[in-house]
Amino acid sequence: MTRWLIGFCLLVSLPSFADIQLQRVEPANWWVGMQSQRLQIMLYGEQVSDYEPSLHYPGVTLVNTERVDSPNYLFLTLELAKEVKPGLVSIQLRQGDNIALVHKYPLLARDNASAGRPGFSAKDSIYLITPDRFANGNPDNDSLSALEDKLNRTAPGGRHGGDLQGIINHLDYIQAMGFTQIWLNPVLENAMPSYSYHGYAATDFYRVDPRYGSNALYQQLAQQANARGIGVIIDVVLNHIGSQHWWMQDLPSSDWLNFSGQFVATTHRREALHDPYATDWDKRHFSDGWFVETMPDLNQRNPLLATYLIQNSIWWVEYAGLSGIRIDTYSYSEPEFLSQYTARLMAEYPNLNMVGEEWTLNPSIVAYWQRDTQRHDGYQSQLPSLFDFPLQAALVSGLTSQENWNSGLREIYLSLANDYLYGRPQDLVVMPDNHDMSRIFTQLQGDPQLWRMAMVFFATVRGIPQFFYGTEILLANPDSDDHGEIRADFPGGWPADKQNAFTGEHLSPDAKMAQNFMRQLLNWRKNAVAVHQGRFVHYAPLEGTYHYFRLSEKQNLMVVLNKNDQPVKLDLQRMRETLTEFSTATEVLSGKSTALADISVPARTASIFELN
Amino acid sequence: MTRWLIGFCLLVSLPSFADIQLQRVEPANWWVGMQSQRLQIMLYGEQVSDYEPSLHYPGVTLVNTERVDSPNYLFLTLELAKEVKPGLVSIQLRQGDNIALVHKYPLLARDNASAGRPGFSAKDSIYLITPDRFANGNPDNDSLSALEDKLNRTAPGGRHGGDLQGIINHLDYIQAMGFTQIWLNPVLENAMPSYSYHGYAATDFYRVDPRYGSNALYQQLAQQANARGIGVIIDVVLNHIGSQHWWMQDLPSSDWLNFSGQFVATTHRREALHDPYATDWDKRHFSDGWFVETMPDLNQRNPLLATYLIQNSIWWVEYAGLSGIRIDTYSYSEPEFLSQYTARLMAEYPNLNMVGEEWTLNPSIVAYWQRDTQRHDGYQSQLPSLFDFPLQAALVSGLTSQENWNSGLREIYLSLANDYLYGRPQDLVVMPDNHDMSRIFTQLQGDPQLWRMAMVFFATVRGIPQFFYGTEILLANPDSDDHGEIRADFPGGWPADKQNAFTGEHLSPDAKMAQNFMRQLLNWRKNAVAVHQGRFVHYAPLEGTYHYFRLSEKQNLMVVLNKNDQPVKLDLQRMRETLTEFSTATEVLSGKSTALADISVPARTASIFELN
Repeated sequence: MTRWLIGFCLLVSLPSFADIQLQRVEPANWWVGMQSQRLQIMLYGEQVSDYEPSLHYPGVTLVNTERVDSPNYLFLTLELAKEVKPGLVSIQLRQGDNIALVHKYPLLARDNASAGRPGFSAKDSIYLITPDRFANGNPDNDSLSALEDKLNRTAPGGRHGGDLQGIINHLDYIQAMGFTQIWLNPVLENAMPSYSYHGYAATDFYRVDPRYGSNALYQQLAQQANARGIGVIIDVVLNHIGSQHWWMQDLPSSDWLNFSGQFVATTHRREALHDPYATDWDKRHFSDGWFVETMPDLNQRNPLLATYLIQNSIWWVEYAGLSGIRIDTYSYSEPEFLSQYTARLMAEYPNLNMVGEEWTLNPSIVAYWQRDTQRHDGYQSQLPSLFDFPLQAALVSGLTSQENWNSGLREIYLSLANDYLYGRPQDLVVMPDNHDMSRIFTQLQGDPQLWRMAMVFFATVRGIPQFFYGTEILLANPDSDDHGEIRADFPGGWPADKQNAFTGEHLSPDAKMAQNFMRQLLNWRKNAVAVHQGRFVHYAPLEGTYHYFRLSEKQNLMVVLNKNDQPVKLDLQRMRETLTEFSTATEVLSGKSTALADISVPARTASIFELN
Repeated sequence: MTRWLIGFCLLVSLPSFADIQLQRVEPANWWVGMQSQRLQIMLYGEQVSDYEPSLHYPGVTLVNTERVDSPNYLFLTLELAKEVKPGLVSIQLRQGDNIALVHKYPLLARDNASAGRPGFSAKDSIYLITPDRFANGNPDNDSLSALEDKLNRTAPGGRHGGDLQGIINHLDYIQAMGFTQIWLNPVLENAMPSYSYHGYAATDFYRVDPRYGSNALYQQLAQQANARGIGVIIDVVLNHIGSQHWWMQDLPSSDWLNFSGQFVATTHRREALHDPYATDWDKRHFSDGWFVETMPDLNQRNPLLATYLIQNSIWWVEYAGLSGIRIDTYSYSEPEFLSQYTARLMAEYPNLNMVGEEWTLNPSIVAYWQRDTQRHDGYQSQLPSLFDFPLQAALVSGLTSQENWNSGLREIYLSLANDYLYGRPQDLVVMPDNHDMSRIFTQLQGDPQLWRMAMVFFATVRGIPQFFYGTEILLANPDSDDHGEIRADFPGGWPADKQNAFTGEHLSPDAKMAQNFMRQLLNWRKNAVAVHQGRFVHYAPLEGTYHYFRLSEKQNLMVVLNKNDQPVKLDLQRMRETLTEFSTATEVLSGKSTALADISVPARTASIFELN
């Protein structure tokens, strides 16, 4: 009774609320019913650390309050009981008896299907889009007064005006092409003075860059994509921020950034993490080194930052209804943090997919990060997928080099033969190229036949194929490997474009043929269960020909890559063990059926046969 | 009483001994006190399988008799009780009541130190000798009437007359050079019509080729070497025999050879053994395929053959007092057999060393065979060592290629950084070259400075260094990579030789300088405990310079490889963590001491510093 009275008195004697203002509360909301019962909330406001927080909500307890070097931050850790209901949690800040502020913190209801959502998988084909370069759906947001980097479509590294509305406008095209996932290069605010279009220098972890649209539009994009059976994959950067991130004006603590906030370049020598003989110098200068001076490197050893980053990824998955995460510059973040990050994400979404970028041609280093890989050092990882950079390089070299003992198609075979190193090779993301390397058509020396072979390969090999926007119309960068050239504008994405790849207008005959080929290939792939889940079997290439199989209960496929200038017949004797139960083969794109003994694979092609 | 009487009667009624003659009993003897109590004896004689064997010796039991396809073989399995005494075991062969033959089988006493003998190790430097090409100590055995391939010193692939006596005669030289182990290419009988000098086509597993000497001389060589502190390593071929092997006239069974004795070439595609997608065709054509038509491929799945091969290796180690085994074309033998082979040998000699030849640049495949490697498939191996082919290739490329992101000295660094793949990287055998590849001096483009850097590297890197005879005098094959040219005669090994590398007579100044350098380097290495057992630590190469360390309690070394055309100083700041406790460095070959801050490593050299 007495306590109630005191409470009542405090409540009625409300003081001036102007004592303190919160500039940021991050995350701005959370959800009930998550796997983890902990929630960390960052409060940011002038001298907020002078105040004492308290909470008032059934089932929610404030279990920890942390102050950091800057007096303008307060980190609260809440514990949410299992049965806590959605609603507004009152967070009070007080000084002595003075309640300086009450913040109503939203705990939202969670979609029933949220935790169990399916991630992208081998059933899917991923379309990688650089949002600034695909389609300009809203010319009004091309240049904004609050953001320094304005539209400059003539500069390869300038902003070209592509945006989320542009992507939404062309979801029909993406769907018709047969893609079932889109991965966008980061769309978070990059309030950098220049070269901001690539998106990898975030200045706000909770805000879509207004030149792309808004958080709500991003959510809409995902919803509209989902309605077409297309998932959305977010591109997450855990390793660094942009130098114009708001933190940079007022760092929470001196250990928030690596090298105490001073620029020291990374060596990019990821081998040091695994090397049994590595010095601390080499390890630190890899992990803690910065990419460039304009991208300060985050120190995820700081547990507040670690939790901030983990929650941020969960927030976007939950908020926008995403099917997966692509994690930039994966191994450059702290290994122990990554361990924690992947465990937490997979605990919240057991079927989610996440793919890490570990750009090295050493498969044992790529494999190190994948779940179920046998590791020499007991490291824990729940990361489902990585990009198969070794296979990408092997494919290009394999198609373009001479056929020799260890070159030519054998390079592709040897790359796949290394799959014993991976915990789950079938979950790797395979790709002809990406936004950071020359276009596959250029890598394949502008040869449309090699390009077709590459497309067939990635559409049928084990793994989850990803294609960079424009690959389907043979976009190329023959004259320059400048990233701005590589990430060229998709023709037809801008109103004045003469060429239009969406309608086919003024597209070259080669580009049209390629586009039709891809459309047919990927739409066929949608229902090719043997590609989704079939056992992979291959024969070591002989005489410029490579045969591999995808074998499942319902469907059996044979793919033949023939680099010769002559057609080749099947060696039924050598392949008896695989072919014995079949008699005919139907070329899946033409529908033409042939007796196995009569099959002839045309010169310089790749053919997919369904075996019966 | 009755039974004794019957026994007595049989004994007195000895029949004619001429009924059967044994042409071979293999092994011809065995030893008591071995770890394994089983002994398999192969009896070979016309129609021997028509007879029934029995044994008469305390503690020895005949537990199994096996007959095979050919009636001329009988395989006996004996069980030797723990306490069995040396002596002659009577093996009787009878037909009904008729004792056709009594063979007195010697069970010898075993040297007390035999089981615990030390194998070659990182303390050692191995000298690899091609016996036909090192020194001709006995011209009388150059050509022998019973053996078709006669002396032909002008032919690169002919016999040149080198022999065991030649090696014995020059053990002083080998010792003075600082070598502590010799590995001879195989010395077993190779009664092949031509191209027999290399020794890898054995025609008798229990007989030293008489053109090299005799079993007894081989034993003597080992004894005389041992007396000088030099161990002897036998080169064992488990995978194949010569087509003139006596078995070929009368194969024990139809499954004694792979592909039923028909020549089918190996694909050399060892990856198939590991590849999760490999077909049986690819696996079988690697393992069971033959090298060449003249080297029939053994099928070690046959348990009698498997035991025969295992016992043969044990027999040579025990008979000659060897310190280790080099196993030819390791992975081409049956994996399960190799598992058994290594387990058996290591059980008999727990400190023995054995090094397998797995010639691939894929370190995870080399590592697969080594003991303590973490394998994906549960395969068991007790093999202590393998040749580090990936490091050999990396060293050559690293010294000869331009310094770039992934080339130059970084190739060497990256190769070593992969050591997490190996169960015991410190036990690998490292080598600048061997008898199957171009001479290191040729691989290094005839550059004496690069040659010195290579020698310093192999003498100080982790592992057990092996040098091919003649490396120390810059033998080269600039004009041809014909194996006969590579395995050139060692100058001075033949009486009429003008040049004499043993005495230095008419040796070029470069060769003399190289020889002195090697002598000094390897003799220093003998007592360099940090090289034998020190921790390896290295820094990623920067600007054409590579620093690595060998750190131990008693000695600390720093090795600097400088590929620049200018001298380089130490980056004391970067290397603080390693150098902090030291102030001076003594260059070990010159003995010159310098303060760390003043060290300057001359252009294009490798220097070894002892730190204090």
